[in-house]
Amino acid sequence: MSKQLKFLLPEESIPRRWYNIQADLPVPLPPPLHPGTHQPLGPDDLAPLFPMELIMQEVSTEREIDIPEPVRDIYRLWRPAPLFRAHALEKALGTPAKIFYKYEGVSPAGSHKPNTAIPQAFYNKQAGVKRLTTETGAGQWGTSLSFAGSLFDIDVTVFQVRVSYDQKPYRRAVMETYGAKCLPSPSNETNYGRSVLAGRPDHPGSLGIAISEAVEIAATNDDTKYALGSVLNHVLMHQTIVGIESMEQMAMADAYPDVIVGCTGGGSNFAGIAFPFIGAGLRGGPKPRIVAVEPAACPSLTRGKYAYDFGDTGHMAPLTKMHTLGSTFTPPGFHAGGLRYHGMAPLVSHLKELGLIEATAYHQTECFAAGVLFARHEGIVPAPEANHAVKGAIEEALRCKREGKSEVILFNLCGHGHFDMAAYSAYFAGNLKDENYSEAELAMALAGLPSVSEAA
Amino acid sequence: MSKQLKFLLPEESIPRRWYNIQADLPVPLPPPLHPGTHQPLGPDDLAPLFPMELIMQEVSTEREIDIPEPVRDIYRLWRPAPLFRAHALEKALGTPAKIFYKYEGVSPAGSHKPNTAIPQAFYNKQAGVKRLTTETGAGQWGTSLSFAGSLFDIDVTVFQVRVSYDQKPYRRAVMETYGAKCLPSPSNETNYGRSVLAGRPDHPGSLGIAISEAVEIAATNDDTKYALGSVLNHVLMHQTIVGIESMEQMAMADAYPDVIVGCTGGGSNFAGIAFPFIGAGLRGGPKPRIVAVEPAACPSLTRGKYAYDFGDTGHMAPLTKMHTLGSTFTPPGFHAGGLRYHGMAPLVSHLKELGLIEATAYHQTECFAAGVLFARHEGIVPAPEANHAVKGAIEEALRCKREGKSEVILFNLCGHGHFDMAAYSAYFAGNLKDENYSEAELAMALAGLPSVSEAA
Repeated sequence: MSKQLKFLLPEESIPRRWYNIQADLPVPLPPPLHPGTHQPLGPDDLAPLFPMELIMQEVSTEREIDIPEPVRDIYRLWRPAPLFRAHALEKALGTPAKIFYKYEGVSPAGSHKPNTAIPQAFYNKQAGVKRLTTETGAGQWGTSLSFAGSLFDIDVTVFQVRVSYDQKPYRRAVMETYGAKCLPSPSNETNYGRSVLAGRPDHPGSLGIAISEAVEIAATNDDTKYALGSVLNHVLMHQTIVGIESMEQMAMADAYPDVIVGCTGGGSNFAGIAFPFIGAGLRGGPKPRIVAVEPAACPSLTRGKYAYDFGDTGHMAPLTKMHTLGSTFTPPGFHAGGLRYHGMAPLVSHLKELGLIEATAYHQTECFAAGVLFARHEGIVPAPEANHAVKGAIEEALRCKREGKSEVILFNLCGHGHFDMAAYSAYFAGNLKDENYSEAELAMALAGLPSVSEAA
Repeated sequence: MSKQLKFLLPEESIPRRWYNIQADLPVPLPPPLHPGTHQPLGPDDLAPLFPMELIMQEVSTEREIDIPEPVRDIYRLWRPAPLFRAHALEKALGTPAKIFYKYEGVSPAGSHKPNTAIPQAFYNKQAGVKRLTTETGAGQWGTSLSFAGSLFDIDVTVFQVRVSYDQKPYRRAVMETYGAKCLPSPSNETNYGRSVLAGRPDHPGSLGIAISEAVEIAATNDDTKYALGSVLNHVLMHQTIVGIESMEQMAMADAYPDVIVGCTGGGSNFAGIAFPFIGAGLRGGPKPRIVAVEPAACPSLTRGKYAYDFGDTGHMAPLTKMHTLGSTFTPPGFHAGGLRYHGMAPLVSHLKELGLIEATAYHQTECFAAGVLFARHEGIVPAPEANHAVKGAIEEALRCKREGKSEVILFNLCGHGHFDMAAYSAYFAGNLKDENYSEAELAMALAGLPSVSEAA
């Protein structure tokens, strides 16, 4: 442990601008389409859901967008986040690779999600919005938006997937501690929720249903807007502070990554660490390999189709071109709830199509094994989602060992696992299975993709 | 939020020496006594339980004791810990007071406990010890020692109070993630545990029983020692890095505390923040008021007797002079498990007797209300134990408001509440009661204190 372990930046190094990868794309992103007309969306189409500042960020091709000072002021609560060299893990693996990780679990919510929750709450508050609605599965995003809402004095209503609502009351308690209202979805609060309950009163819910409910409330109430925790361009952009800080910290370590690893559900923490490095490569800088790690039970990047699809089950959200398993695909109930989404961020999908990133998938038990190894050597217990990135980084380090290469590996440890110890309990008790989807269900979901003529 | 919020120290500012308040005491601490003979203990009496380095620290009157570099290396994982100005809370309270808090929840275990777990594991490893035993109630200490054991490759066996073991499997999962063995206490692993179970097979356990079991294992196995998470002099000394850092950070803020607040169970986090300031006062510096906040349901400092008493139920641990409710006193089952101990650290008790600190007690519902107010304005959800310090600080701030004084208040936010959301759930559901002990039981427990002639 005598070599430098932690790379800390002074508070002044909190980035002043987000990085917008759309400025550097060799091919522009296919536009989102209206869910009814299938025509390209204009800013006005999104106005019922988002304040105009966020809509303009969504479509912007400016390379840098200023971070408002009130947002930076709150980032100071936990940023700059530390970057560590994993000396003990390297030694345990016997690898010549140098492993670095950025640790986003230091935020009050325990994950990277507040990086976008804070600016989203800020811009909504500025636009006079009184209430934000959103969905949450495991609860990381609902927690983070509740946290942001409490600091900007804006009401937050969270539709939580019913099965999580019932099984994880302590997640709800965090949201309530921050003053948010948390409802099980499907609920009786929305037309869509009522229609789902009419078909099946004991419906366990899904992220797609919860999104539809949150969107419906926002679309039908003037004082209410909607907030999404991943997938959208502006959400991914807000996360780039992770990578911007990491670039400065890697320079402190006198190293530059050969490989960057992140876990992918909707794509936001992965984009956060990777996009600034990808952008530097697109502008003529070094080009590290970029590896997205997804759950084998919900493998949108490795098994999905690159096509226009709905982001929600009720088909109220825009159509976006992305790697998707189909909006009717129901991921099996594995523990990395933050990765249980049928689609992938359009920007991440686009980069995959352009050959700028790689993707790989692992099952949950091998990811938990990686997380436990990490915890015993590095001292931090990762969230189940982050275990996928840990697994990906370890595999790269073992490849380096086989090949005798001392490459530099950087990964994003996007959250701690303190809220997720029930999953670790199940793992130690031997009750954790590697869930699998059925190939027939996947084929059916893909066959049901909307038919879109891509004149755009 | 425009005024400075966070006071960060560079890594070089991690203290190089612990502060030993025994060097500055105007009256020396009464010595610990042998539980059998009631004679003052010598270092050899403690040798079955602790490595000699820690025994020498326990009795040392040197003002400063060097922190070994391997310990500082691990402290770097999360230290120096941040100190914040609670601008938003001040505004919400409408107080002219300036409220600062030191945040120890940034450690991988989520509390201040690793500050002593790491050096205890280090000195034991250095002495060739293969295994450490300890007790834990809610699980903070067991988690922290497990974390330390994993980093120093030393086995850890934790006796967890059975009711917690059954009700909080996710705490056990953290310990197991770090590779520790966690047993419900009373257990069949010890003579003492078997004797308790013989009397009552479904005994729910207590901290006092778990201590006896852990001590028995250490005392009867050559390769095994015992580690305690609070109460002892060396444990409190390890925590003084909290206060040493805080002094430097308060200087950055160009302020010096008028009042310092900490919650007290065994006394370690309180000592950590307060002792360096008390010591400075004893050496001629400013003398802030020092306020210990304890749970009204387990009020050792405010209702206990200052007397020699046993630290454990089985009467295997030394007798120490402390504020105690009696070793047979069973605290009601409130949620701040870390404060459910019948005694108080001898050093903290001694300072109380010398008039160098004050003490006050609050019930749990008012402490949870304070914690929720804090979370909604400052963004961090405190542990139930830390809520007592939050409550104490808020009361001081409201006094300042009444008196029109802009005093500087510093408190120790010793841990986050992410593991304790079930308690917040109960609070929001209205299921949290202010538990009370029976006066008759307290009187009986105090009447049963050991009779010790204090020739020493």
